[in-house]
Amino acid sequence: MARPTPLSGFPEWRPAGRIVEQHVLDVLRRTFELHGFAGIETRAVEPLDQLLRKGETSKEVYVLRRLQEEAPEEGRADEKQLGLHFDLTVPFARYVLENAGHLSFPFKRYQIQKVWRGERPQDGRFREFVQADIDVVGAGTLPYHYEVELPLVMAEALGALREIGVPPVRILVNNRKVAEGFYRGLGLTDVEGVLRSIDKLDKIGPDAVAELLVSETGATELQARACLALAAINGPDASVVDEVRALAASHGVVSELLDEGLAELGALVSAAAERAPGVVVADLKIARGLDYYTGSVYETVLVGHEQLGSICSGGRYDTLASDGANTYPGVGLSIGVSRLLSRLLGAGLVESSRSVPTAVVVAVNHEGERAASDAIATALRARGIPCEVAPTAAKYGKQIKYADRRGVPFVWFPATPEHTRADGTVVPAQGDQVKDIRSGEQVDADPADWTPPVEDLWPVVRAVERA
Amino acid sequence: MARPTPLSGFPEWRPAGRIVEQHVLDVLRRTFELHGFAGIETRAVEPLDQLLRKGETSKEVYVLRRLQEEAPEEGRADEKQLGLHFDLTVPFARYVLENAGHLSFPFKRYQIQKVWRGERPQDGRFREFVQADIDVVGAGTLPYHYEVELPLVMAEALGALREIGVPPVRILVNNRKVAEGFYRGLGLTDVEGVLRSIDKLDKIGPDAVAELLVSETGATELQARACLALAAINGPDASVVDEVRALAASHGVVSELLDEGLAELGALVSAAAERAPGVVVADLKIARGLDYYTGSVYETVLVGHEQLGSICSGGRYDTLASDGANTYPGVGLSIGVSRLLSRLLGAGLVESSRSVPTAVVVAVNHEGERAASDAIATALRARGIPCEVAPTAAKYGKQIKYADRRGVPFVWFPATPEHTRADGTVVPAQGDQVKDIRSGEQVDADPADWTPPVEDLWPVVRAVERA
Repeated sequence: MARPTPLSGFPEWRPAGRIVEQHVLDVLRRTFELHGFAGIETRAVEPLDQLLRKGETSKEVYVLRRLQEEAPEEGRADEKQLGLHFDLTVPFARYVLENAGHLSFPFKRYQIQKVWRGERPQDGRFREFVQADIDVVGAGTLPYHYEVELPLVMAEALGALREIGVPPVRILVNNRKVAEGFYRGLGLTDVEGVLRSIDKLDKIGPDAVAELLVSETGATELQARACLALAAINGPDASVVDEVRALAASHGVVSELLDEGLAELGALVSAAAERAPGVVVADLKIARGLDYYTGSVYETVLVGHEQLGSICSGGRYDTLASDGANTYPGVGLSIGVSRLLSRLLGAGLVESSRSVPTAVVVAVNHEGERAASDAIATALRARGIPCEVAPTAAKYGKQIKYADRRGVPFVWFPATPEHTRADGTVVPAQGDQVKDIRSGEQVDADPADWTPPVEDLWPVVRAVERA
Repeated sequence: MARPTPLSGFPEWRPAGRIVEQHVLDVLRRTFELHGFAGIETRAVEPLDQLLRKGETSKEVYVLRRLQEEAPEEGRADEKQLGLHFDLTVPFARYVLENAGHLSFPFKRYQIQKVWRGERPQDGRFREFVQADIDVVGAGTLPYHYEVELPLVMAEALGALREIGVPPVRILVNNRKVAEGFYRGLGLTDVEGVLRSIDKLDKIGPDAVAELLVSETGATELQARACLALAAINGPDASVVDEVRALAASHGVVSELLDEGLAELGALVSAAAERAPGVVVADLKIARGLDYYTGSVYETVLVGHEQLGSICSGGRYDTLASDGANTYPGVGLSIGVSRLLSRLLGAGLVESSRSVPTAVVVAVNHEGERAASDAIATALRARGIPCEVAPTAAKYGKQIKYADRRGVPFVWFPATPEHTRADGTVVPAQGDQVKDIRSGEQVDADPADWTPPVEDLWPVVRAVERA
């Protein structure tokens, strides 16, 4: 078997990178759980017809077939065709419907899983990647305040990663009702078309968007410029609401939907300014491609890494799912964990202090005394100290090197009885000792009570210091 | 959208079940990390040719295709066909080869991931399930003592689950060298064939196996009965070694391989009897289907649930992978987490004390005072107490019901100022209070220092008490 090469678009981390990833996932999970979100996992596959409900994503789906697919048996229906899920929202909607009778609403859940998209891989785009989602879904109704709460939970989760070197985040918020109310008030009816055009602003610039608006949505030059003026409004506090009002007034726009959206947007920005100062910014150009959003929409950039695109997006949807008896409105956001990690690890922003959990390597004096080393390791583990026993009773130097190569800070030397060397020298009995192989300091130690400094107990994930 | 139904073979848990699963995974992870195993994850897919290296599994593989597969571009090779991995050993072998230059050997890793098999689903067999694997792999060589260590790590991991009601486990061990040495010493050459026949003992019984041995492997009746006599030997200590020696002597079997295997098996059973009394049992009928095992082999049953089959299996392989320059011998075991969980949850052996992480629901007095409740929740979370704010400012009874339906033990009532009821009654000011809704006890509390009893802080996963 020749040495295999990586598959483009399917990222994998080496052990030290995986420690960083696991730390990030642990921090996210803890934040979500502190806010009362229940963790769920859904299967990786969904029936293809469910995955294709939104036609635009069909090109991305991986379809499964069993290698030795048999012909369907007599009287047995064809198995449903299955595909790998491409996000966690479609499976969550299905899970809610399937388990509705057993869930309590509003239902708050987090879900951290891999998803797959059959896209051409490119920078920051993967074919397999980890998403971390939170959603709240109601049965029939869902109060507005969750649209304020959820981006703040994400701000807290991402903020908790600041100490390991994750750059600060900026959450850009908008409200579909504002955009739709404004466009309709202007006299434009193809709201989806306008949103799609505005969504291209960062890529093609305002003049090209204006042309698109005229050619694709039937807007006049004046209407197009008004849409662009709306998209140009942004700011960290409720003054954006006044700016939008003034713009609407100057175009004679009167819209209840606009007013409702502005009230929501203002409440969101005000609450956010108080609870997470400087994190949430209203940005009226945020459109989000998906057409199921009906209220707040969110995108999140890493400050200083804006070209990476949004690492946490979402919004409010009035109908996540419906089973005839009930509709389930919700609001949620999704962190692109792999995209975030590929930047953190790729740019060398974050590191793990070692590549293994081990804090102590217990040396072995002679292969016949391995049981003594095993007993020391067992005593340390019983007190929660991660350790392993050296693979062979090689010379101490080699056993120390085993620890050093993995970044393990301590090597334990088991007690030795008095013994005579080949040259006749008598070596006195020696008790257990432990060596900090970074400083070289070696001290007497008892496996029943020695403890490493707390910062050495488990691998530390930390920002890389820059010279 | 009609209410969807579950897909057979793709288990999913409701939130309380997922808390149990997450607890099990956390316990396994902690045990593996205490023993110095580095966690890795590999992508879900492998090139199909790698998955099919062992022909016997080909029927189980799910193959992927992109829904809108394009014709290969000019000058661009066809993309490799990809399949979902059906175990974690094949991907681990590939990972070791791919990263060999960056890993330190012996390399100890754990890996907890889903795997997929396109089998007909049946009781205890799934199409998607979680495995938890540990392996140690060496470059060129791997000391025998790891064959003793690894099943003991699994015994410790599964033993740590006893307190949540997982039945005790029995690890059945054998050694390929014993079987092969004995069969060859008898004069049988089709060792694989004999192992395959012996593997069917539990299913078809000794007489049918004897017939198979005669018809399939060319054994005489006497040789067949000798193989069955070997398979009948089992016991919890090194006396099994003497039994095998006596049986071999009675058949005139002389084999260095047998002696080597017996020395290893004896060492394993003796060490295990000391370090995990009563857990490891030598059982000479354990054959394991896969032909790459070359030394110790392991199976694990839940005591009292033996008909569930092995929930943790593995063995020693001399060539996990080879890249020409090096071969990588290893030893590993794999826990079938989903099989274990489906029994624990299906038989009602284990439960979670609640279905959400939340320890406290903070009530809301009036919708206009939601910010005060948010501030209380923030103060509690800052001290690590999982909590959420009630969805609406409904009557207290309804807010208590919100908590009760989820098993949340505490409801917090924010302070209220002196106020006058509609009937003119003056209600005096009241400070913050917290109610244990199980006992009804309600006490004054300060969000800056109140803490729930430690056993109520997070959901408790526990054995179900039987009347």
